[in-house]
Amino acid sequence: MPAPHRTSLHIADVAIADEFWSPRRETVRTRTIPHQETRLREGGQFEALLLKPRSHDDDDRELFPIFWESDVAKWIEAASYVLATADDPELDSASLNSAVDKAIDLLAGAQQEDGYLNNYFTAVKPGKRFTDLGDAHELYCAGHLIEAGVAHYEATGKTSLLDIVRRYADLIDREFGPGGSCEGGYDGHQEIELALVKLHRATGERRYLDLSLRFIDNRGTQPFYFDVEGERRGHAGYFGGREQRPFNPRDQRGREYAQSHAPVREQDAAVGHSVRAMYQYCAMADLALELGDEGLRAACERLWDDLVSTKLYVTGGLGSDPSIEGFGKPYDLPDYTGYAETCAAIGLVFWAHRMMLLTGDAKYVDVLERALYNGVLSGASADGTKYFYGNPLASDGTVERSDWFDCACCPPNLARLLTSLEQYVYVADAEGLWVNLYVTGSARFAHGGQRVTVTQESGYPWDGAIAFQITEAEAPLPMTLRLRLPEWATGPARVSVNGTVLPYTTDKGYAVLDRTWTAGDRVELHLPMAPALVRADPRVLSTVGKVAVQRGPIVHCVEEIDNAAPVPRLVIARSGELRTEHADGQDSIIAEGLVDAPAADSLYATEPPAAEPTAIRTVPYYAWANRGKGTMAVWVRETP
Amino acid sequence: MPAPHRTSLHIADVAIADEFWSPRRETVRTRTIPHQETRLREGGQFEALLLKPRSHDDDDRELFPIFWESDVAKWIEAASYVLATADDPELDSASLNSAVDKAIDLLAGAQQEDGYLNNYFTAVKPGKRFTDLGDAHELYCAGHLIEAGVAHYEATGKTSLLDIVRRYADLIDREFGPGGSCEGGYDGHQEIELALVKLHRATGERRYLDLSLRFIDNRGTQPFYFDVEGERRGHAGYFGGREQRPFNPRDQRGREYAQSHAPVREQDAAVGHSVRAMYQYCAMADLALELGDEGLRAACERLWDDLVSTKLYVTGGLGSDPSIEGFGKPYDLPDYTGYAETCAAIGLVFWAHRMMLLTGDAKYVDVLERALYNGVLSGASADGTKYFYGNPLASDGTVERSDWFDCACCPPNLARLLTSLEQYVYVADAEGLWVNLYVTGSARFAHGGQRVTVTQESGYPWDGAIAFQITEAEAPLPMTLRLRLPEWATGPARVSVNGTVLPYTTDKGYAVLDRTWTAGDRVELHLPMAPALVRADPRVLSTVGKVAVQRGPIVHCVEEIDNAAPVPRLVIARSGELRTEHADGQDSIIAEGLVDAPAADSLYATEPPAAEPTAIRTVPYYAWANRGKGTMAVWVRETP
Repeated sequence: MPAPHRTSLHIADVAIADEFWSPRRETVRTRTIPHQETRLREGGQFEALLLKPRSHDDDDRELFPIFWESDVAKWIEAASYVLATADDPELDSASLNSAVDKAIDLLAGAQQEDGYLNNYFTAVKPGKRFTDLGDAHELYCAGHLIEAGVAHYEATGKTSLLDIVRRYADLIDREFGPGGSCEGGYDGHQEIELALVKLHRATGERRYLDLSLRFIDNRGTQPFYFDVEGERRGHAGYFGGREQRPFNPRDQRGREYAQSHAPVREQDAAVGHSVRAMYQYCAMADLALELGDEGLRAACERLWDDLVSTKLYVTGGLGSDPSIEGFGKPYDLPDYTGYAETCAAIGLVFWAHRMMLLTGDAKYVDVLERALYNGVLSGASADGTKYFYGNPLASDGTVERSDWFDCACCPPNLARLLTSLEQYVYVADAEGLWVNLYVTGSARFAHGGQRVTVTQESGYPWDGAIAFQITEAEAPLPMTLRLRLPEWATGPARVSVNGTVLPYTTDKGYAVLDRTWTAGDRVELHLPMAPALVRADPRVLSTVGKVAVQRGPIVHCVEEIDNAAPVPRLVIARSGELRTEHADGQDSIIAEGLVDAPAADSLYATEPPAAEPTAIRTVPYYAWANRGKGTMAVWVRETP
Repeated sequence: MPAPHRTSLHIADVAIADEFWSPRRETVRTRTIPHQETRLREGGQFEALLLKPRSHDDDDRELFPIFWESDVAKWIEAASYVLATADDPELDSASLNSAVDKAIDLLAGAQQEDGYLNNYFTAVKPGKRFTDLGDAHELYCAGHLIEAGVAHYEATGKTSLLDIVRRYADLIDREFGPGGSCEGGYDGHQEIELALVKLHRATGERRYLDLSLRFIDNRGTQPFYFDVEGERRGHAGYFGGREQRPFNPRDQRGREYAQSHAPVREQDAAVGHSVRAMYQYCAMADLALELGDEGLRAACERLWDDLVSTKLYVTGGLGSDPSIEGFGKPYDLPDYTGYAETCAAIGLVFWAHRMMLLTGDAKYVDVLERALYNGVLSGASADGTKYFYGNPLASDGTVERSDWFDCACCPPNLARLLTSLEQYVYVADAEGLWVNLYVTGSARFAHGGQRVTVTQESGYPWDGAIAFQITEAEAPLPMTLRLRLPEWATGPARVSVNGTVLPYTTDKGYAVLDRTWTAGDRVELHLPMAPALVRADPRVLSTVGKVAVQRGPIVHCVEEIDNAAPVPRLVIARSGELRTEHADGQDSIIAEGLVDAPAADSLYATEPPAAEPTAIRTVPYYAWANRGKGTMAVWVRETP
């Protein structure tokens, strides 16, 4: 079995010190994470871990939501990333460390003798553990606890939480292994599968990988496990199937909702709940990489092609159907009513990164970057205190972000992504370094027995001129440096080394610089970054006849506040000039266009309306809805 | 006080014998009315009239919907129109007569000693009559009973139902008159106001007119009556405000919902529930005509201008907001999600006709005709057995008509309009005859002491050539014949008399032919009827950049089944030819245009999509959704 070829650099070995991400990460550190701790304390999530088993198990009141442990886990995970990388004197690391330790103590107290750790089932439904995998989010919570345990261990070196989650994982392995009480079972909301791969990597224990593969390979085989467990319960769902999910888990739509309608290796279309799908696909890519499993790899590539060719918003958002928080039919990407949950775009970042590790193909990072800078980032307000759950591509003027959600999956998910952004910037393999994202900062890694440090500097995402310097290398260093050539580049990239423009070869979307480096070497990459108009396949009926404005990785939108009329009245000239203005830390694009003037007298007339020239001003999509309500659209009509 | 100048001809004096309306009216006679009788029997509406007061008035179960008597009344009204005009040998008039008599017997049995007639309050809520006018639809039901009583009397000469409703109206007059228990009150769903005008006209009793005026003038004055009655009940709505209507009747939105937010004479914008609005405006126009009331006339004209200049769909539909079955903001006319209830368009026909009677202006008939041929007629399927409650102007392919509705106001409303269509065709006054609608058939009326018969013949609405003949006139007849010149005409109308083209004067949209006629005189009117493209004011954001196709009074739509691609992918060429094809009893327009072709490879691209020439075929909007599901749009993109 081949070892993984490519790995992310550890987040402690990457520094991010730019003008784009650093302030946003600072907001997460100084506001979002403390705010979330307060929410967890006030909301009762911590307190729920203190509950003891109830005396009357015929009392079926629900004391707290079944997914609360995942909220605690995601907070610990994000806080751990902060502890791993924080060099901010304003941040009281000791205080955060202590808050995390207290939360871990609560989890330790709630863990049962045999390793079980889900206080909903311990305190509210004793005796019912692992009997409603289809709906109960039990293994989903376990997965988030495991991710938190690994992150905490890697950040702090402490095994307090890692030990807890290992004992729990060991119990799950017994119960779901051959002869176990839940043999053949798998999660109703995928998550534990990718977490077990992380646990394997952190501990070296092969059986966590095997357990993950077992979950993946059990999924969608017949008889369907959710049918089997339902029959065992006499079809009485503990959580009333219809309350927890829009479909019966035991019919075809319900199975598609949780991607359990067919064996995973045979799946070829992105269907159902989009976050469930992304987490499953992540685990498939992880296992394909760890095990060299060609069947899983092929399935991942089919699912990827289906997603990016028919079900992906231009913002990197996905899951257009709000009724299932999931995928619509191919090309069904409505702009006003589309869902595009923040968590789904985050899940796509996770999956795309794994696909790049698996294949070495930059096309996956193109999508990662599209999601990251657009459909993910739009999830939070500029000040980091308000959130979108769904991220529509157009607004009639009534849409705005909320303070919080009852089902608050998106804000902590955004927090853990931004606090661990380091891992997506660089990838290392035996040949050298791959640069996937352009973020000012540095990377430290070992190559050919040497310690190497590379710095990166640019005005990205506003400027396509990026400079790298080998600042640490003990001796002449034969190494391949791969620089991603983004799909958005509006011309051939130019590469120079120490001031001399050099020809370069390309491989799967990377410029390949294979040479012997010495400390002080400087590489300059120039990516042409002209603003451009983008069109969707006309089968996307909501956007036909319209264009989106993009510059570099940033997808723009048009807001009423910057323009002469409500956005639907604006028309961008197909062949007009697109001018970039940079102010207040972000680009605006000014497009030539027309505005349809109000009619002189009657509501309907046979004469075409008068159209007057106007300049149409954009802002980055991620920045919309920060200046009051008004109409907004990513897709704007164009003159043919 | 001036007597009414203009009156509709009685429906028994008008014959409709054309190829457009006659088959549709036949469907109503032979299918809809018997079908509705069955529904009323099976649904329990008839049976509910037999219920006696309940012994336990603390049992607050609701035995039947509060508006059921209006269903019975509308059925009797439509059946009465059939009895007035039927000359169809297939129709068993005796049987229909007997069914109507039986229904009237049930109403007689349910009427109380003092004249009260609402069996919901008699049997289910004894002692609570007239205590929740805001929500209980009590006077609304009374209004429909009165309309039925008048129609039945005028159709059959029998006073069985007229006597019943007069006794009820007399009770209402006492209760709502000076010193009555409900002095100052008015209906939560306007309807009785226009019915009382009809009762006045049928009986000559002035106090019904006074009562109607009292309802109109009480409305919206302070203190608000629904507040007053609410306080009397201790704010305990019998029907739970939120269940019967989307708003609290005692706040501003709730008041606007029922047009009781301001004194009627001060109202200047169409707001709230659109059917309530139309029925109120009808009564206002009636009273302005009967009483020469300039204040009500001015209010009607202001409300009309607001409606037609900012809130009317091109189909004559109105009330774009489904959440209130009512008006949105100005220019808020969404195509996919717009409501445009069939009953509201029917109400607009009622109001527009009254405005024409009041003003002699053809502009009201232009709107009447627009609603009648489009937004009203779309409410029923081609075979007359399925119905739209809402009539959206575009469909994503999921919209279809239903068999029936729990709140079945629209099907019987359509039935009573089509069975009494005669009254909208001609108007008479002291000077002569006004022709408002072009419908093959004849009109019989008295003028200058003579009996006159005029026949009309055309292929309308598909052909603008219309011929009239004076077929009966005892002596040379000085008379003014006014022929409406529709706003849709695509050129000057041509008029000839006995084969000679004559110049004509025009007045308020009518060609005025003032001469002395003799039997056998023939008038030919030619209305240029070229297909045309119509644009909306660009402030209508859902339709900006799009055109609708219209020919004559018929607004067309494009259905996927007739075209090369889903409708949003089609673009009509602004300057292309529009060709008319007539087949199977209706027009199609074939427009030159383009279809955006699917992209070759990727979902998003910078190149504009390839557009291929295509012929775009329309059907009349009223005829859509009769051939399975598919995308549809009235408004289609156009090339600038």
